Amino acid sequence: MIDVGASVQAIDTPALVVDLDAMERNIARMAAFAAAHGVHWRPHAKMHKSAALALQMMAAGAVGVCVQKTAEAEAMLAGGVGNIYISNEVVSLSKLQRVAQMAAALKAKNTSDRLAIAVDSAEGVQRLAEAIGRVAGDTRDVIDVFVEIDVGQGRCGVAPGPAAVALARQVAQHPQLRFKGLQAYHGGAQHRRRHAERQQAIAEVLRQVQATRALIEAAGLKVELVTGAGTGTMALEAASGVYGELQSGSFLFMDADYAANEADPARPAFEHALFVKTQVVSTSAAHAVCDAGHKSHAIDSGLPRVFRPDGGPALAYFNGGDEHGILRTAEPGQPLPALGDVLWLIPGHCDPTVNLHDHMVGVRGGLSAGRVERLLRVDARGALT
Amino acid sequence: MIDVGASVQAIDTPALVVDLDAMERNIARMAAFAAAHGVHWRPHAKMHKSAALALQMMAAGAVGVCVQKTAEAEAMLAGGVGNIYISNEVVSLSKLQRVAQMAAALKAKNTSDRLAIAVDSAEGVQRLAEAIGRVAGDTRDVIDVFVEIDVGQGRCGVAPGPAAVALARQVAQHPQLRFKGLQAYHGGAQHRRRHAERQQAIAEVLRQVQATRALIEAAGLKVELVTGAGTGTMALEAASGVYGELQSGSFLFMDADYAANEADPARPAFEHALFVKTQVVSTSAAHAVCDAGHKSHAIDSGLPRVFRPDGGPALAYFNGGDEHGILRTAEPGQPLPALGDVLWLIPGHCDPTVNLHDHMVGVRGGLSAGRVERLLRVDARGALT
Repeated sequence: MIDVGASVQAIDTPALVVDLDAMERNIARMAAFAAAHGVHWRPHAKMHKSAALALQMMAAGAVGVCVQKTAEAEAMLAGGVGNIYISNEVVSLSKLQRVAQMAAALKAKNTSDRLAIAVDSAEGVQRLAEAIGRVAGDTRDVIDVFVEIDVGQGRCGVAPGPAAVALARQVAQHPQLRFKGLQAYHGGAQHRRRHAERQQAIAEVLRQVQATRALIEAAGLKVELVTGAGTGTMALEAASGVYGELQSGSFLFMDADYAANEADPARPAFEHALFVKTQVVSTSAAHAVCDAGHKSHAIDSGLPRVFRPDGGPALAYFNGGDEHGILRTAEPGQPLPALGDVLWLIPGHCDPTVNLHDHMVGVRGGLSAGRVERLLRVDARGALT
Repeated sequence: MIDVGASVQAIDTPALVVDLDAMERNIARMAAFAAAHGVHWRPHAKMHKSAALALQMMAAGAVGVCVQKTAEAEAMLAGGVGNIYISNEVVSLSKLQRVAQMAAALKAKNTSDRLAIAVDSAEGVQRLAEAIGRVAGDTRDVIDVFVEIDVGQGRCGVAPGPAAVALARQVAQHPQLRFKGLQAYHGGAQHRRRHAERQQAIAEVLRQVQATRALIEAAGLKVELVTGAGTGTMALEAASGVYGELQSGSFLFMDADYAANEADPARPAFEHALFVKTQVVSTSAAHAVCDAGHKSHAIDSGLPRVFRPDGGPALAYFNGGDEHGILRTAEPGQPLPALGDVLWLIPGHCDPTVNLHDHMVGVRGGLSAGRVERLLRVDARGALT
């Protein structure tokens, strides 16, 4: 493990490196954006999985974190994060018992710290209520509950409209559960290349959310908050007047895949802040081979892009398997890197890339001449259950 | 973490589960196969990353382990494995120092335990010799060295023929290094669908290995061992009379991808022994959603297959992102699984799947009625450097 204070050159490869200057500019941009639009931001910790980064963003104005997994919530809680939303369905009895214990512990603190969770089925609500009851008895409002509606993602979520109303009513019947509002996330819309395509998708999302909210409020229940949005579409949700909370997480580091999207002029231009440092370990006349393969970075959203902070010809990265990357020059006739040369990769998708590593190495002063300022533990790495 | 003795039903999801009965049948088949062909087997620990499993296979006749990374070698050594081959190039000075320390420590034990490594460049040999010299002075034969030749993979390896001879000579000039033979691995050939395609690829591999070996021996150096092969082609290398050692690792668990290959009748029919246990957390009229996405299993070699040990209609798995899988019935009109139902996934590629988990849960007695017999720590998970 690298020491704090060491130079960037001393970081052995492959390693996951955070450009802290770029990351902090991204945080400042996000905080200013949310403030300007009067919305909360609750960045998704499924991306960075670090309690320290969650706390750093909360110090900059974030209201808490989202997580996808019970074990991620436990890792955040253990790291001192007290306002946690599990933006996903949990149905196993053993996991719901853990959820109930966390919720009851936070409730007992009698602060603004809360646990919240999403539901999308009557059986899920019933199981959640029973689990909370077993741990917290008849204590009121132990956990906040969002009804998730499927607004086009085609994954979890009840259908918008009457089915969501029925579920909201069911939640409200359990005194231990506090019906808080709607979870409405369209993940696929984040990654549509053209701005107009994303606008069209989110316009349809907004119609469904507004119609469902109106039905629930007509049934006498208050929809206090609509939560959702991701880095690809957040300016649309923020300007909608419908969403009160943005869950965007990737803005912090920025995937290579997001850089391929047509920009939304209303959204801050976030910078890449997460890199895999890699070294050339083999060369031939046709290519160079580096020591970072898909055990170092996820490839579900495409292969990484090569970044050369010190210049040098553009290189294309080809899949070399679990432990290797194949590098060829983007233009013919350009020189290949030499044995031992260092290169930097921008991962196609940050979330599953971070999950491959135990630590991120935080660097101040750039990737060429910077120094290691902090080691960021990936607290929730492999926190699957 | 699940307790030893618990029932399979008690394993929370998603979890990586090893069917110990199937795994041990695979080990017995491999041991019998290697004995029948008079070849060594040195299964690749980049796949299972568990020192306990390495030792279990060595007790069944394996000569040691292969690894790809210095940190994997360290994890195996720490777990009691003493015969380790780093079948990959290492060029960073800090890693070579670690390599030298391990090699010198094993040499000093004065047993048959050894460290070995691959090289494919003059600079790599020079750096290795200097690192060994700094740690071990002029001690002779501290580390075994294989010259890697590129036999069609198009990744690492020097060209077969005179370039390999020059490298072997260079190795032999350093008394601390013992030139041991050739590393010749054609990874791409493992995954060709038709047996005839694999035969053709390995026939060309054998021609290149034999020609290079003849040149090196004509130069007065002994090629004691040719090492290589994987689960997809191992019967071809084993029958060749050229390869003395098989590196196959995947036979232990078997990827879903391998099951898509036309079988080689000369190779044992290995069974799937690695599964992701997952639970349905959301349902709709069109699909069910389970709690295992590509943070639970690697998708570089395709999506997982769904296995239902208790029957039920065939299901197809679609990518639902990092934390979810979308399940649809393979035949229209069949019932979807219900909320809370348990399903089992056969990962497309075991190596990077194991690397996502801290533990594998070893089950005896099958996936329906079995019990947890042992927890297998993934010792080298994330051992990237």
